[in-house]
Amino acid sequence: MASFDRQGLMRHLGARISHIAPGRVHITLPARPEVTQQNGYFHAGATSAIADSAGGYAAFTLFPEGADILTVEYKINLLAPAAGDHIEAVGTVLKAGRTLTVCQLEVHGVQGDGSRTLVAQGQQTLIRVPPTDV
Amino acid sequence: MASFDRQGLMRHLGARISHIAPGRVHITLPARPEVTQQNGYFHAGATSAIADSAGGYAAFTLFPEGADILTVEYKINLLAPAAGDHIEAVGTVLKAGRTLTVCQLEVHGVQGDGSRTLVAQGQQTLIRVPPTDV
Amino acid sequence: MASFDRQGLMRHLGARISHIAPGRVHITLPARPEVTQQNGYFHAGATSAIADSAGGYAAFTLFPEGADILTVEYKINLLAPAAGDHIEAVGTVLKAGRTLTVCQLEVHGVQGDGSRTLVAQGQQTLIRVPPTDV
Amino acid sequence: MASFDRQGLMRHLGARISHIAPGRVHITLPARPEVTQQNGYFHAGATSAIADSAGGYAAFTLFPEGADILTVEYKINLLAPAAGDHIEAVGTVLKAGRTLTVCQLEVHGVQGDGSRTLVAQGQQTLIRVPPTDV
Repeated sequence: MASFDRQGLMRHLGARISHIAPGRVHITLPARPEVTQQNGYFHAGATSAIADSAGGYAAFTLFPEGADILTVEYKINLLAPAAGDHIEAVGTVLKAGRTLTVCQLEVHGVQGDGSRTLVAQGQQTLIRVPPTDV
Repeated sequence: MASFDRQGLMRHLGARISHIAPGRVHITLPARPEVTQQNGYFHAGATSAIADSAGGYAAFTLFPEGADILTVEYKINLLAPAAGDHIEAVGTVLKAGRTLTVCQLEVHGVQGDGSRTLVAQGQQTLIRVPPTDV
Repeated sequence: MASFDRQGLMRHLGARISHIAPGRVHITLPARPEVTQQNGYFHAGATSAIADSAGGYAAFTLFPEGADILTVEYKINLLAPAAGDHIEAVGTVLKAGRTLTVCQLEVHGVQGDGSRTLVAQGQQTLIRVPPTDV
Repeated sequence: MASFDRQGLMRHLGARISHIAPGRVHITLPARPEVTQQNGYFHAGATSAIADSAGGYAAFTLFPEGADILTVEYKINLLAPAAGDHIEAVGTVLKAGRTLTVCQLEVHGVQGDGSRTLVAQGQQTLIRVPPTDV
């Protein structure tokens, strides 16, 4: 997505969109020292950042080209230390309304052998704004 | 703080602790392309990351050396586009308990002339864990 | 407020508006067996219900007659067992926008001698809808 | 459950546990004027109260007799006007830990013909406390 490519933060972290379907987007972030907290796990800020983006782009898939989507708020529970070869955030639209969209957010730690652990789960509210209104 | 210096993400974003007092920590993040979203504002993920860290270190100030603090969950409302010369997150302990600590989180956009806008507010729950239990 | 008087739940719980100012509303709920949880404290559901209503009416004070306000979402931390002669919820508008309003919610346990304890704090998002759009 | 029967609020609202399985509890609340908001829908406070209780009892099913469970915090999105013959809250344990348990909360509006609408979804953190520590 052009919009994703313009997100300096996602590029700076090394995140990329790994799956797009209507109402669902996956974002993957490989492990590296630049995204850790003090104990070597993925930083909650990195985990949350890709979760938030996954939800935003999941909402984006349901709207016409040119619409813009802003995060109103989100809440995230960090369920387990985020470790692994990479983490994968899954954003899924729970309800798409005219003005507001609500997404469920999940982040999994994925080991080199493909085994997965749910490391975070959240819930997010987004608002659709006209392109010129941002 | 030694712990902060070990957080690869904070260093990678360019964040630094700008104020420490008992139960209150400020973290500052200068504007640069690496922390933006698609419209050039600070990315919600960057805003949240420093808010989360500010709350964590605010809790940290109230516990003996060697304790470790993990974020259980947080919720954040993004109130206005995060613009400015830099953003400043303020984490303040609302209640410190034996096991759980609750913090209030605020993030301000700060212009070159010092004027400030509240761009995000949140609430965070943290848990204190023995150093070896992480 | 006419709207409050039409809220069957608030009447059924025994809650009443105890203070109204622009952007701020207090709601008081006296202790009685009908609002308790299993240990005799105020039930989190009762605490949350008056917190949610206090935020909703705080937003209401800032809009013209006839507007309707719906809760989009809220998050609440229960900080201490809610005990006392009564509890008092304080809803304060943090940001009022054209479409969305964000409130801070606090609930205090108040003893017979007037001493107060913060028992819950939350954050709430509301949406303004045309009267006929509900 | 004995604990549920001691919850004055649940009895006062007219709520009852309609399903219990390990890690999952349903609570049902019939429509009546005592649980409404100003437009005749179920009040968000009633919706939230049974959601919170459903999560709490879902956690309860996984612990030995005598343990006590307190809500630390929850967040709930109100997705649609809560209407119907009754509403049903479903609390499901997402992660059960030694100290903290995280639940997902859903509330459905159920019509007389059995058709269901998701009216609220939330996420909740609970803490297990020794019986004497409450």
